[in-house]
Amino acid sequence: MIECSLRHPRGRTRILIGAGLLTGSDLAEILAPWLSGRTLFVVSSEPIRRLHGVSLAKLTAAAGRRVDLDVPDGEVAKSLEHAGELWNAMLAAGGKRDSRLLTFGGGSVGDLGGFVAGCFLRGIEYVQVPTTLLAQVDAAVGGKTAVDLPGGKNTVGLFHHPEWVLADTSVLSTLPEGEIRSGLVEVVKMAALLDPALLTRVEADLPRLLTGDAEALGPVVAAAAHAKAKVVEADPAEGDLRRILNFGHTLGHAIEGALAYETLRHGEAVAYGLLFASRLAVRRGSARELEGRLRALLRRFELPPLPALDASELVAFMGRDKKALEGGLVWVLPKELGLGEMVSGIGREQIETELDLFLRDPWAGPV
Amino acid sequence: MIECSLRHPRGRTRILIGAGLLTGSDLAEILAPWLSGRTLFVVSSEPIRRLHGVSLAKLTAAAGRRVDLDVPDGEVAKSLEHAGELWNAMLAAGGKRDSRLLTFGGGSVGDLGGFVAGCFLRGIEYVQVPTTLLAQVDAAVGGKTAVDLPGGKNTVGLFHHPEWVLADTSVLSTLPEGEIRSGLVEVVKMAALLDPALLTRVEADLPRLLTGDAEALGPVVAAAAHAKAKVVEADPAEGDLRRILNFGHTLGHAIEGALAYETLRHGEAVAYGLLFASRLAVRRGSARELEGRLRALLRRFELPPLPALDASELVAFMGRDKKALEGGLVWVLPKELGLGEMVSGIGREQIETELDLFLRDPWAGPV
Repeated sequence: MIECSLRHPRGRTRILIGAGLLTGSDLAEILAPWLSGRTLFVVSSEPIRRLHGVSLAKLTAAAGRRVDLDVPDGEVAKSLEHAGELWNAMLAAGGKRDSRLLTFGGGSVGDLGGFVAGCFLRGIEYVQVPTTLLAQVDAAVGGKTAVDLPGGKNTVGLFHHPEWVLADTSVLSTLPEGEIRSGLVEVVKMAALLDPALLTRVEADLPRLLTGDAEALGPVVAAAAHAKAKVVEADPAEGDLRRILNFGHTLGHAIEGALAYETLRHGEAVAYGLLFASRLAVRRGSARELEGRLRALLRRFELPPLPALDASELVAFMGRDKKALEGGLVWVLPKELGLGEMVSGIGREQIETELDLFLRDPWAGPV
Repeated sequence: MIECSLRHPRGRTRILIGAGLLTGSDLAEILAPWLSGRTLFVVSSEPIRRLHGVSLAKLTAAAGRRVDLDVPDGEVAKSLEHAGELWNAMLAAGGKRDSRLLTFGGGSVGDLGGFVAGCFLRGIEYVQVPTTLLAQVDAAVGGKTAVDLPGGKNTVGLFHHPEWVLADTSVLSTLPEGEIRSGLVEVVKMAALLDPALLTRVEADLPRLLTGDAEALGPVVAAAAHAKAKVVEADPAEGDLRRILNFGHTLGHAIEGALAYETLRHGEAVAYGLLFASRLAVRRGSARELEGRLRALLRRFELPPLPALDASELVAFMGRDKKALEGGLVWVLPKELGLGEMVSGIGREQIETELDLFLRDPWAGPV
């Protein structure tokens, strides 16, 4: 078991990572004092519960009482309506301020469950048990919670840090390959700007990582979670510093929006975002070596091709990104390996021109 | 203008109080840097805007752009549905993370608007401009925001502190007398346990205060807001200390629930709650003098009579109060003037017996 922690304004999140974590006895013991005598609400989905119900039972045995709340699988769960249903159910079940909540599932379940915990009676304590790679390395770490509005993803939410994040890499073996790939893109994102050694490790272990090998994934998840935790610690309210984690996401989100969140997974869209941001950086005289290295690595991911998209439509989506400020877009660009920078003031026309070129052949590299 | 401040984990709220505050030029100047170049969302209601629109225009003149969002007057505004409508409208109007929000109205508008600000794009900065006495002395101070579920009031919300609270006692003159009375009950609550000098002042100035006299109310609002701010500072996450503010509210909320939030105003229900809690304290050997003093003072409020209510029904409502913990109810009882205590473990039967006696004649005092 690898442990790291994240200090935030209201306390500390303990992040535990390991293959077989959920089925070992250590964890149940660690959680017991927190669960004992309490009502525990478990927010999960039916498929996850079917796959990993036994582990869950072991983990939550110490709770005074367990109330299971299922939501649909995937992004569709992240609506105000589902949040409202959960709140009503928790209230009807006698939930109190010292009740507990545990999210058990992918990023959507974690985002929704964390939001529900954060607002129920103005906030109850909770635990994130992420079951996808994307959630283990990214979504579950950092206290971001949210639901979606028709007008945009993650537009309603808050920062509410879990007491623990419990990442068992053994559960990842049941994921489709595209899910593993998608999660690894976020690892690459963090490695490129925050942890050069992690980038080297991903390059070396890629074949094993892509198959979902729990032992190989353990230290990779731990390093990525650690890197993210340090950034979040330094900037809990998402001022400037934390924006570094947005590397690849400005175009990534726009691609997802333009594709109506179909065709490509989040990480796959972000991979194209990483390529484009790196290319922009090279055009500004930075990160030439890193750009080549990222392009070579991401090529080995065998991503689904980027569908035909219109540059001006993508730029319009960027303007609606919630990370946009009234002063305009801020780009996270690599400066060199292990170093990113925030760049504002790049004109819309320049972006459109670059994007137009990029869309013709995302793999061509900077001209 | 009287100023006090409230330090909280994420910064500081400046609380400004005075007769004529909104129409003076100082305030517009203070807010200008915060508003300049930003989109300002004003959450208010039509009647308030009609009464005080001119003051509002003056106050918000520096904003880059103002978007008015009206909600219904009163508690009915505090629903998830209204919050959803506001979020959608803000997103459609191009709201960003550095957009601003201002609530302009009573406690309901403030609770809803604060919640909406706290969750929009995971939190934007906002200002509370409370226009009722209750909101000026209590609801707007302390960062509590919430909406209601069918199963209970304030059951969904978060702590989100405003940048400023701007309390102009001149706007109170348009309030019905019952509203002033209701707000003064919260003043009495805080004075009794936190500020003996304030209690003396309320006793002395009661006739002028009850008429809504802006000059008399100024220092009273300031003292109450200051007392509350100090408690909140000492206990930002509402652990034990802040519960002191719940004096009178255990029975008060139950009365409101049993009356379906009709017949009595919040403060009027709390007044009966103060009487009952004080009586309980005397039965336990405390606060005999304070009980008599509070009863004498509250009698001068000429409250509407307490409708016929059933003790066991009220106790059932208490168990559903969101301040209840899994271990049972915690009562805030006066120990003596200027000192309260949290008491848990009072049996349900004892409460029912005492309550039964109390309901027969709330003004009789302890037997």
